[in-house]
Amino acid sequence: MEAFRSRLGPLPSWVVRGIGDDAACLESPSPDLDLVWTTDTQREGVHFRWDWLSPEEVGYRSFVINASDVIAKGGTPYAALVAIGIPAGFSEKKLMDLYEGISEGSREFSCPVVGGDISRSRGDFNVVLSLLGTVPKGFFAVRGGLKAGDVLYLVGRPGLARAGYMAMIAGRGDEEGFREAVRTFRRPRTFRDWPGVFGSFDGITATMDTSDGLGQAVWEMASESRVTIRLAFPDGWIGHLREPAERLAVDPFRLAWEGGEDYDIVAGVSRDLEREFVERAGKMLGSTRDSVIRIGEVIESGNSPVECRNSGGIWETLKGEGFDHTRI
Amino acid sequence: MEAFRSRLGPLPSWVVRGIGDDAACLESPSPDLDLVWTTDTQREGVHFRWDWLSPEEVGYRSFVINASDVIAKGGTPYAALVAIGIPAGFSEKKLMDLYEGISEGSREFSCPVVGGDISRSRGDFNVVLSLLGTVPKGFFAVRGGLKAGDVLYLVGRPGLARAGYMAMIAGRGDEEGFREAVRTFRRPRTFRDWPGVFGSFDGITATMDTSDGLGQAVWEMASESRVTIRLAFPDGWIGHLREPAERLAVDPFRLAWEGGEDYDIVAGVSRDLEREFVERAGKMLGSTRDSVIRIGEVIESGNSPVECRNSGGIWETLKGEGFDHTRI
Repeated sequence: MEAFRSRLGPLPSWVVRGIGDDAACLESPSPDLDLVWTTDTQREGVHFRWDWLSPEEVGYRSFVINASDVIAKGGTPYAALVAIGIPAGFSEKKLMDLYEGISEGSREFSCPVVGGDISRSRGDFNVVLSLLGTVPKGFFAVRGGLKAGDVLYLVGRPGLARAGYMAMIAGRGDEEGFREAVRTFRRPRTFRDWPGVFGSFDGITATMDTSDGLGQAVWEMASESRVTIRLAFPDGWIGHLREPAERLAVDPFRLAWEGGEDYDIVAGVSRDLEREFVERAGKMLGSTRDSVIRIGEVIESGNSPVECRNSGGIWETLKGEGFDHTRI
Repeated sequence: MEAFRSRLGPLPSWVVRGIGDDAACLESPSPDLDLVWTTDTQREGVHFRWDWLSPEEVGYRSFVINASDVIAKGGTPYAALVAIGIPAGFSEKKLMDLYEGISEGSREFSCPVVGGDISRSRGDFNVVLSLLGTVPKGFFAVRGGLKAGDVLYLVGRPGLARAGYMAMIAGRGDEEGFREAVRTFRRPRTFRDWPGVFGSFDGITATMDTSDGLGQAVWEMASESRVTIRLAFPDGWIGHLREPAERLAVDPFRLAWEGGEDYDIVAGVSRDLEREFVERAGKMLGSTRDSVIRIGEVIESGNSPVECRNSGGIWETLKGEGFDHTRI
């Protein structure tokens, strides 16, 4: 852990005690803020392979995937802890590169790493990051807050991470046509400005990131909210997947719907504030390649939680397959 | 994670959102309090073996070892997150028993489990718990606060966990003479009332738990404080180790000095509040088998950070060997 110190800049004022003790000490945030707290893991052989990702990419990724959860809930990252399991023969250099990636995330989100734990692992390498954030009181965005009448938006660029993953699995990660896809998988981005733009915006009723896939996010939001989501995707919403999908000979819709690890955000939006939402989200994205995509509407109850019109114009269940680690 | 819910009692009022979302949401504690935050890991094959510990014991242990770090710093546990890595073939029953052990810890410390992460592990089982606590502002007890003139106390019953571990390694864990030792290893205790008694007591200058051994704790406290600790152990302070040490044919002092996982607390105490400290600590321990042991004094600087009188009456360096995972 000490090796982190040299990589991290000066600690912000709210860190009373950082790396170097049995626990960290932080000032409590203002009572106008609630705490948002999450933990997420990157395991060798499960979430990544060393021949796909560099140690620096694994470190950066472990930071971003946690930041994404906090940000999707409207939270601003506050501080992080890192627990690492190191197998025999893991080199000092690899560990330093990993730290560098985590430190990069830390700097990008102005979120200090204040401590952690390193232990030997008899199995594979793994890194468990725990991230604490703050959110204006009462504005924590739950999964299950959708109401009939809301509209559903996707902010991002879905399916690319899965395409990149598939290209790498197939040993084709170096092909020019997969460049953006592979980069999305290796170096995920999250919407750092989301909490500033939407952290206390009344128009958002529910949000979730698409770490486990767009389909799964939509299903979980509908189920928890006890409503039905009727999906209607605009033309061209997955135009960016045409080339990678063709190269992989897969359905681009499945890439977008089932693929995970894009770290896009699905948001339920009150209809009366829809215009304001679109405007703010558009400004937030600026000139990036991400889009604000209206993907459906929320009704009280249909035949199933998530429906889509079939070719005959009938609303049918659209299954949401994603990756669920808890299915053991 | 959902399986936790049924095991946990009703959530306290400060939990805005517990298990079941991408992040937990907690009220910020009072601005009079700072946050204390730690993370610690239990790995199969490194920290325990399944033929030594039941899943319930592993779960309970993972809670207590984190609580010990927070408590030793003067902090009161506030909430916990749990990240679990599950190898192939890990049974549902085993997972439920693990949850039960964690839930037991949660109930004992009135500290809700508010979320976590489960993922497959291609390697061994591991559980990373992250614990958040609160401490009165300005009272976080650092390692490195010892001052010349302080006295050093050990609160606990050192060496038993190591004796229990050695007995189990030798396949002798069932012998009557190792009963207390084995129990100490399998089911560590920490001083739940410490934060209430010492959380805002002015007489404590530095503390550390003995998770990595008494010797290592004393060395780290001395080094970080840039002082010398002169140890003088009272007669009979390790009388409880006589029998297990004899049975194992090891030096009882080495068990006490080098053994870890006792979760005792080493505390530097201002001399003018020593009496008050001893009285409070004694009351805290009540009729338990733990003791308040005066183990040394702090001087400005000797020849080395930690010294003990040799048989000729000369102060000599006493090495502090403990277990250091970071030595890879």
